[in-house]
Amino acid sequence: MGRQIEVTELILRDAHQSLMATRMAMEDMVPVCEDLDNAGFWSLECWGGATYDACIRYLNEDPWERLRTFRELMPKTRLQMLLRGQNLLGYRHYEDGVVERFCDKAAKNGMDVFRIFDALNDLRNLKTAIDAVKRTGKEAQGTICYTVSPVHTTEAFIEMAQQLKDMGADSICIKDMAALLKPQPAYDLVRGIKQTCGEDTRIHLHCHATTGVTFVSLMKAIEAGCDVVDTSVSSLSLGSGHNPTEALVEMLEGTGYETRLDLKRIRPVRDHFAEVRKRYRHFMSDFTVIDTDIFESQIPGGMLSNMENQLKGQGAGDRVREVMEEVPRVRADSGFPPLVTPSSQIVGTQAVFNVLTGRYKTMTSEFADLMLGYYGTTQGEKNAEVLQQAEAQQQKPAITGRPADLLEPEWDQLRDAAAALEGFNGSDEDVLTYAMFPQVSTKFFKTRHEGAKSLAKDPEASKTTEAPAPAAGAGGAARKDPVTYVVTLNGREHQVRVSPAA
Amino acid sequence: MGRQIEVTELILRDAHQSLMATRMAMEDMVPVCEDLDNAGFWSLECWGGATYDACIRYLNEDPWERLRTFRELMPKTRLQMLLRGQNLLGYRHYEDGVVERFCDKAAKNGMDVFRIFDALNDLRNLKTAIDAVKRTGKEAQGTICYTVSPVHTTEAFIEMAQQLKDMGADSICIKDMAALLKPQPAYDLVRGIKQTCGEDTRIHLHCHATTGVTFVSLMKAIEAGCDVVDTSVSSLSLGSGHNPTEALVEMLEGTGYETRLDLKRIRPVRDHFAEVRKRYRHFMSDFTVIDTDIFESQIPGGMLSNMENQLKGQGAGDRVREVMEEVPRVRADSGFPPLVTPSSQIVGTQAVFNVLTGRYKTMTSEFADLMLGYYGTTQGEKNAEVLQQAEAQQQKPAITGRPADLLEPEWDQLRDAAAALEGFNGSDEDVLTYAMFPQVSTKFFKTRHEGAKSLAKDPEASKTTEAPAPAAGAGGAARKDPVTYVVTLNGREHQVRVSPAA
Repeated sequence: MGRQIEVTELILRDAHQSLMATRMAMEDMVPVCEDLDNAGFWSLECWGGATYDACIRYLNEDPWERLRTFRELMPKTRLQMLLRGQNLLGYRHYEDGVVERFCDKAAKNGMDVFRIFDALNDLRNLKTAIDAVKRTGKEAQGTICYTVSPVHTTEAFIEMAQQLKDMGADSICIKDMAALLKPQPAYDLVRGIKQTCGEDTRIHLHCHATTGVTFVSLMKAIEAGCDVVDTSVSSLSLGSGHNPTEALVEMLEGTGYETRLDLKRIRPVRDHFAEVRKRYRHFMSDFTVIDTDIFESQIPGGMLSNMENQLKGQGAGDRVREVMEEVPRVRADSGFPPLVTPSSQIVGTQAVFNVLTGRYKTMTSEFADLMLGYYGTTQGEKNAEVLQQAEAQQQKPAITGRPADLLEPEWDQLRDAAAALEGFNGSDEDVLTYAMFPQVSTKFFKTRHEGAKSLAKDPEASKTTEAPAPAAGAGGAARKDPVTYVVTLNGREHQVRVSPAA
Repeated sequence: MGRQIEVTELILRDAHQSLMATRMAMEDMVPVCEDLDNAGFWSLECWGGATYDACIRYLNEDPWERLRTFRELMPKTRLQMLLRGQNLLGYRHYEDGVVERFCDKAAKNGMDVFRIFDALNDLRNLKTAIDAVKRTGKEAQGTICYTVSPVHTTEAFIEMAQQLKDMGADSICIKDMAALLKPQPAYDLVRGIKQTCGEDTRIHLHCHATTGVTFVSLMKAIEAGCDVVDTSVSSLSLGSGHNPTEALVEMLEGTGYETRLDLKRIRPVRDHFAEVRKRYRHFMSDFTVIDTDIFESQIPGGMLSNMENQLKGQGAGDRVREVMEEVPRVRADSGFPPLVTPSSQIVGTQAVFNVLTGRYKTMTSEFADLMLGYYGTTQGEKNAEVLQQAEAQQQKPAITGRPADLLEPEWDQLRDAAAALEGFNGSDEDVLTYAMFPQVSTKFFKTRHEGAKSLAKDPEASKTTEAPAPAAGAGGAARKDPVTYVVTLNGREHQVRVSPAA
């Protein structure tokens, strides 16, 4: 009894990623950094793939500069990032040398804790990043993407935790991006990891709030020995976001567990974001109440708002539920991958296509690659028929090895390509930006000198940037003409033309 | 293990009372009655003071007809109501004969479970109602209004539960209207009651969700032996409302506790109210996220939205936080009453006056009566200075006896007065309506023949009914003229004139 529970605050990264499409401008975060740094958090999550992408795509902001600013403004508390293993913050696999350079640069720019995951839980995709982070002396946190399927068991997850420890992970994170982790499984999983990997294994728990059950899961995980839990300040919490920080503090009263958080420091942060959120209303999800249908569709928080935006932009906002029902079918066909970036987008976009054009009438090349093992292995078997179609379409065989083993050293080539771009600043950081977002960075380098901008307060301008209007108008009730939809997947646009069946 | 947890569904009463100012029209509830009746709930809460009041004040609907309709449409499941002890559904104390007649009539019209409480937890105010309900053969549920103060302890609440049982209560309800019941106190209180009053004592737990912690409290209460918990279907849940029914079902998976609810029956109910809520947006509270400040102000769910509406109607919507800070002071002065109807309105309105005009510059007669014991005794001592002011103002002494003992039999007089009204239908039910809402019923009896109406879709018309505009315009920034505010307390209008101090 009397155990201290540590907290990771998510408001600078995942909270606004989940609730306002990652659009928060740096100027809206700077005013609260001092309070956050003094509130007693174990770490402040502030960097990841979507924030990096949004910086250069929408905010004309250098993500490395953002990191350095956070470091300067918050010198006392660990800064934490989410890293997609061999994918870094991009959407393809990178050759090991690029992964190593990224980790080194992130550490040098001020990152302390690297939460490293692979969307398929394929540990071979984490190895290089864990090793690279450990060489910098920073924390390499090994991550289990929690999911529910006929092939995912508590025992398998516990074994995965042990493998992560064996690979050198400093701590273990259970990442529940779709709010699927119920209280009893949370208890069993945390207890099982502690028993198998040792009571001194530090366990972090990251749950979204979408289904409404995970605040109870945090409690049960704490009772089972969980050391650090993730929450976000209440004014940007709940819905497809996270459980509220202040409520966690209050909830523990009298339990023998307590945080070292200072609510007096958190109150001004809460009041600040209560005002900020009003100015980003145009980016906020419609899903304001809880949704237990997700126990069937398993669509994670960040994916929900993206899919809604995508469908709305195509005048098909009313088909969200249909797509939610298609997602689990596509997931089963592809061997039950957990749904998290990039597998969530790949499966989600394929589900959108299946609903709009018919099942696998159009197969994205990303989905075909997922079927063929080019993202790694999945826990479950794949649908043989769909696999065959993928092979035929991609004109290449299925693989079983580590995807990055197919890659040649690519750093010099990336540097040369970046160096040829207008506005390239010569740094390795710029090369990494180019490596991860080749098209977007080309535009960003050119406009960087204009300085960071904010999309707050101006809903119309940002909406057109975000979701291209359908080529043939928004979906009318009795439409007979073919409609062309534009579906954006991993930054690439796909055009799809839909006509009535007969 | 394997214990069955029963559930009371709140969507027909407290959910829309807390989230949409009790305005839901009967026509929006009828379509889901069949699903609700077949979903496996222990009871369906569907009647109480605010719904009765809203029926005749805003919806031109006979509340007794509503009750009979519910009974007819939901024959399989217990119907439940919330009864304010000696206050019935009104705002004053009634003579015992009136209380007895009300209970008898409610039972005859179809009510099964009477959840009986007193705002001050003064058990003398519950006795007549408990006895009357027991004579009808229906369930008399004794209620503890949970609150936190220097004078309220777990032991005192356990003792109160025992006294309720001794008085003949069939079950015990812990009513946490302000979402103050944290997980560990919930566990301790439920366990303590079971240990003291017997493990076969059926315990019901009613929590609001406002502070974000009480879903965990439900879990801990269940672990402690709680038998029945209150929730509401997710599309009208959270905020100042209640924890979501579907999430409760999901949360319990694997814990050994389970409900007998059929989610397939609940899904259409959820979808229905997800649409309904859009048409009542103009009545919905601004407080959509959780608020842990309530641990200080202790303002219950239903009171928050009322106070907001009240202040907004007076052009003082920006002073909500000030009033929230004044409430605990007023509460301490009056002996730490729990805050629930009518004490919440009495304390809340006095706090509004204190903020708008200065502390106790204007004392409502209701607050003065509370100070003088005319609502019953409070657990704590009263502020002597404020008590003296109350005595001077009301020109009557403080009392210590049961307030209703001062009342003469009043039924015949009430019947005569009601009989004189245009549109009176001759029934005892109409006499009771008149008894509880003399002014509003006078108007309602006249217009009843026009039939029930709905306030959905038409925000402007209903807003003027609800909150009178200030006599001298909405609060400008640099106002120098006196402003007259109209504060409505228990249906009575108070005019207050405010000028700059000098």
